[in-house]
Amino acid sequence: MIKCGIVGATGYTGVELLRLLASHPDASIEVVTSRSESGRPVADLFTNLRGHVDLAFTEPDMSSLTQCDMVFFATPNGTAMKYVPELLEAGVRVIDLAADFRIKDQTVWEQWYGMPHACPALLAEAVYGLPEINRDAIRKAQLVANPGCYPTAVTLGFLPLLKAGLVDVSQLIADAKSGVSGAGRKAQVGSLLAEAGDNFKAYAVPGHRHLPEIRQTLSTTIGEEIGLTFVPHLLPILRGIHATLYAKIQNKTDLQSLYEQHYADEPFVDVLPAGSHPETRSCRGANLCRIAVHQPQDGDTVVVLSVIDNLVKGAAGQAVQNMNLMCGLDESAGLTAPALLP
Amino acid sequence: MIKCGIVGATGYTGVELLRLLASHPDASIEVVTSRSESGRPVADLFTNLRGHVDLAFTEPDMSSLTQCDMVFFATPNGTAMKYVPELLEAGVRVIDLAADFRIKDQTVWEQWYGMPHACPALLAEAVYGLPEINRDAIRKAQLVANPGCYPTAVTLGFLPLLKAGLVDVSQLIADAKSGVSGAGRKAQVGSLLAEAGDNFKAYAVPGHRHLPEIRQTLSTTIGEEIGLTFVPHLLPILRGIHATLYAKIQNKTDLQSLYEQHYADEPFVDVLPAGSHPETRSCRGANLCRIAVHQPQDGDTVVVLSVIDNLVKGAAGQAVQNMNLMCGLDESAGLTAPALLP
Amino acid sequence: MIKCGIVGATGYTGVELLRLLASHPDASIEVVTSRSESGRPVADLFTNLRGHVDLAFTEPDMSSLTQCDMVFFATPNGTAMKYVPELLEAGVRVIDLAADFRIKDQTVWEQWYGMPHACPALLAEAVYGLPEINRDAIRKAQLVANPGCYPTAVTLGFLPLLKAGLVDVSQLIADAKSGVSGAGRKAQVGSLLAEAGDNFKAYAVPGHRHLPEIRQTLSTTIGEEIGLTFVPHLLPILRGIHATLYAKIQNKTDLQSLYEQHYADEPFVDVLPAGSHPETRSCRGANLCRIAVHQPQDGDTVVVLSVIDNLVKGAAGQAVQNMNLMCGLDESAGLTAPALLP
Amino acid sequence: MIKCGIVGATGYTGVELLRLLASHPDASIEVVTSRSESGRPVADLFTNLRGHVDLAFTEPDMSSLTQCDMVFFATPNGTAMKYVPELLEAGVRVIDLAADFRIKDQTVWEQWYGMPHACPALLAEAVYGLPEINRDAIRKAQLVANPGCYPTAVTLGFLPLLKAGLVDVSQLIADAKSGVSGAGRKAQVGSLLAEAGDNFKAYAVPGHRHLPEIRQTLSTTIGEEIGLTFVPHLLPILRGIHATLYAKIQNKTDLQSLYEQHYADEPFVDVLPAGSHPETRSCRGANLCRIAVHQPQDGDTVVVLSVIDNLVKGAAGQAVQNMNLMCGLDESAGLTAPALLP
Repeated sequence: MIKCGIVGATGYTGVELLRLLASHPDASIEVVTSRSESGRPVADLFTNLRGHVDLAFTEPDMSSLTQCDMVFFATPNGTAMKYVPELLEAGVRVIDLAADFRIKDQTVWEQWYGMPHACPALLAEAVYGLPEINRDAIRKAQLVANPGCYPTAVTLGFLPLLKAGLVDVSQLIADAKSGVSGAGRKAQVGSLLAEAGDNFKAYAVPGHRHLPEIRQTLSTTIGEEIGLTFVPHLLPILRGIHATLYAKIQNKTDLQSLYEQHYADEPFVDVLPAGSHPETRSCRGANLCRIAVHQPQDGDTVVVLSVIDNLVKGAAGQAVQNMNLMCGLDESAGLTAPALLP
Repeated sequence: MIKCGIVGATGYTGVELLRLLASHPDASIEVVTSRSESGRPVADLFTNLRGHVDLAFTEPDMSSLTQCDMVFFATPNGTAMKYVPELLEAGVRVIDLAADFRIKDQTVWEQWYGMPHACPALLAEAVYGLPEINRDAIRKAQLVANPGCYPTAVTLGFLPLLKAGLVDVSQLIADAKSGVSGAGRKAQVGSLLAEAGDNFKAYAVPGHRHLPEIRQTLSTTIGEEIGLTFVPHLLPILRGIHATLYAKIQNKTDLQSLYEQHYADEPFVDVLPAGSHPETRSCRGANLCRIAVHQPQDGDTVVVLSVIDNLVKGAAGQAVQNMNLMCGLDESAGLTAPALLP
Repeated sequence: MIKCGIVGATGYTGVELLRLLASHPDASIEVVTSRSESGRPVADLFTNLRGHVDLAFTEPDMSSLTQCDMVFFATPNGTAMKYVPELLEAGVRVIDLAADFRIKDQTVWEQWYGMPHACPALLAEAVYGLPEINRDAIRKAQLVANPGCYPTAVTLGFLPLLKAGLVDVSQLIADAKSGVSGAGRKAQVGSLLAEAGDNFKAYAVPGHRHLPEIRQTLSTTIGEEIGLTFVPHLLPILRGIHATLYAKIQNKTDLQSLYEQHYADEPFVDVLPAGSHPETRSCRGANLCRIAVHQPQDGDTVVVLSVIDNLVKGAAGQAVQNMNLMCGLDESAGLTAPALLP
Repeated sequence: MIKCGIVGATGYTGVELLRLLASHPDASIEVVTSRSESGRPVADLFTNLRGHVDLAFTEPDMSSLTQCDMVFFATPNGTAMKYVPELLEAGVRVIDLAADFRIKDQTVWEQWYGMPHACPALLAEAVYGLPEINRDAIRKAQLVANPGCYPTAVTLGFLPLLKAGLVDVSQLIADAKSGVSGAGRKAQVGSLLAEAGDNFKAYAVPGHRHLPEIRQTLSTTIGEEIGLTFVPHLLPILRGIHATLYAKIQNKTDLQSLYEQHYADEPFVDVLPAGSHPETRSCRGANLCRIAVHQPQDGDTVVVLSVIDNLVKGAAGQAVQNMNLMCGLDESAGLTAPALLP
């Protein structure tokens, strides 16, 4: 059994990680920390875990975390970087579900996250935890930067197109929509049901932190700078991201075959039949990215529809997938339950 | 034109009051105060009011409030009582949409609201602003205590039964459900879309502040103590209260006729045809209470279904109705727009 | 492996049963029938099952159904009764998720369901599949009538009180609220998002088919007729039932202990700590009934709050629980996944 | 008073038109027809209209419709074209809220709507009822083709850019999202709350009927063919369209000023301050299009955010605006109520 610790598990990625690990055949939850909820039973805060998780939250404490094989950080940005060096030193492997190790360029990171980085030397060592592009590196990694939710949906959607060199990479558009759990379990007026319910809006159009992350991954993958317009929107749903991607085709090909072949061996990317429109609910609670590709009226614009559950393939599920890879387990262990529909 | 001031208009009853007054043929909005938003244009915070309200929020200030004919308090409990004596002294009439003057018994008020009352002498003078029972007193009142949202729906639902002496008043049950705007525009985790959406629960079953208010009104009306079990629930909707009321019938009569006759002359209480099930949306945005009465299987339990929009007949609309009465206007002035459906 | 057939699996109880059986360690899905969707891959209709269920719908056909060990009916009322005699004859065991075998009294059944019963002789033989009262009989049953969703939540909520003889059984009230999946996957205007969304209403107050079912179970259990007022409401949520139950206490006792002891050994009934308010989402996707018991202001009215997922403990999950019992498996097999929150 | 008739008022555009006309100072509702609901009081079907509309639905009948000054068609596509010639002959003016007269080219119309046109001669005469481009023609029109909901939001959003010749018109992208009332009050599985709630998806990516309509308007306006990719999505909200528009800038200018000046005199188009993100709810129930324009990171992609209420500025409100123009009334008559928020 992989002994797991979770730091800062009072948010939505935290409770989802607990849910997945509690059912995982090869993992045990040893420590769950929270400064604000220390002493409180986990299942008292998250009632879905009654009968599944018997631990109480504890103060974050290095002596108990270093007893773990694997420590997950489900903390706000800027927290993991303070603990990670000591954990790595102690031989503990780490998956950070926040953004501390996602951006390779320290300057870019500090610009978008508005603080100095506490351990920039680790930025190069950290492996970006998107198995569909970095599977081998993840297997050997000590430190994995779990991708953001939008970047997962957008990157997996664009990847086959860009790898095949079919589109104008200077004019990519990602119109993305996220359910409100993506905003976290924070008391803020904009996320109230009375504000965000029966309502829809874009946000952060001038610039969102996931933009440099997507740009880095795609540019690195194809070895060329890309131009990307990324517009996120807030959906009045609990879970789910839908990315609608647009690119100008430069070389025509059978896009359906391209996508099917590209993802033929991927356990968690599902290319839908031609003509499909994936729904966010088809991934609700499941570690999946479902994709459809369209070329409306045989024109020169390709439209890719990519959906995930932001808390699963966009966060906790992908973290478990990474843990499975890092620990030599079956990549799908603990991740095989179908989505919940309706 | 009635010159109106609104104190503390940054919440949902505040924005609704602004919406109604902005369209009112005989009222003008002169002052809108908020400590936290002072200086900010009202229509910047509440974008539905762009083009309708040109004022900015100001610091609450007695010199400008005393220039008004009517001051509304849309503040948290415990605020109005600090300002009201000075306003009344200056000849300004006041409608408090919070709870400061709803309970006649100071001890009961202090017990349920957990603070000393700042001007207990005014508790007797304040008129409980439910026009359907206090219309004449409201006309002459200097200070009106606008009823709570649950009390409006529950009281109007029970009233004909109790006035007619038909039921066992020691065993009344009010199972009430409220949309989330009833919890206010406050940043709190429990009201997040990700918490309250696609979810349903009861709350405050051991005791809710609206219990003594309902009990006072019904007991006073019939001159007899009543026994009431009141269970509120949180609905994942924006606006609307549905009260399902149960009582044991002691004397049989034609309940449909009783209700229709009782409310025949009321402009804002609508008794639906026999067999109906009122929907909250049938009152969305409108100053109405719609009621249906049932006696399932001709048994001895009467079931009354009573719906309102908690922000209109349950708050701001009722306040405007009270203002109309206090100022000798047509009681329906500014309150005639149909509900929004869907 | 238990070879399972499902008749009529194009509705919400059908897809939920497929989801649960697809992950069940001891069951295999052999046949999935539908007249309207015959020939279509199941996972084409229910995209959450892509990669989990490879079958296509087939025409209902006795020769393939009789190859199964267990046949589930997820059909409209009035369908199962036409097939069941032949299946039982062939030695196949049957669980009907519809209402054909829930009511023992043929006259009552025909009155509430508006059709003649096709095999009234089986009404006596069928076992009402609520394990918490009929566990031993279910183990030996050839034919199980899976309980209705409301009856499951209401019965489990009232049971300890009634068994202990603590309340006036002539005056029980069940104010119940159900998510819209309870209305089925039928094209009807009243269930549209534009009708039922951001809205709330009661329905069927004059009489609902689950009333005689609840009455039968509770009366049989205590050997005494009960008087019950049952008012269902439509909630704008996908899944979940919340029953708020009221009864008049005749003999005082420690209600919290009573409930905890009554359900101490039940794997799927969870009595929450004193003072709790269960949420429907705490059971989302899980085979659980969570219950809290209150006695507001130490008065003589007891309030029980009982929540389930209508598609799981209220339908498909309970059916799997019954199958486990009938087949001598661990009662919890395939039913241990935590609920999905948020 | 303008005597109004409404044909086919049992859908959502119908009830919204009734709501607006019932409060209109210069209009009276004379006839409301419906084949399916003939004889039923309008306010029995649409309970929000109780006390506001006293008529019953009648069979569509030319003798009563020709008594009207103005007849609105809120019928399915293909209905109005059968009645309009006779009404025009009788001197009645007509506004069709469906699509029968929106497309000038008969071949294009028949291709997208899949039926022969019943009166192609009127296609040229009909005026496309978007006041912001056709105000003068509308004033004189006998027959107005009320624009589609998506075309209203998309056209108003692109208009200033295209008129100013600033962008590459061969590569326009409209990523549009609509609330579920846009799908109409039809019993269909895909619009059920249990299907469309807590869910999000694109639809009709290969081609949607509003594509040729938008293309016609924009091409005609600038006298040049445009290339447009239009992707509609279904939002789990009741009302509202959000169009996110993308275009490649060819000539830089101050976009904020451009938009503000373009719409400076328009009563129902509101250009928000720079940096804004309009919300659908800011138009809920109001005849408004609110627009914000962005140029992220000063790149060469312009992003326009355009929101309307699909039932008001996208249907019934725009129809009333057109009626006001046709009848020489104040263009804003009956259309001044603020939006409902929350």
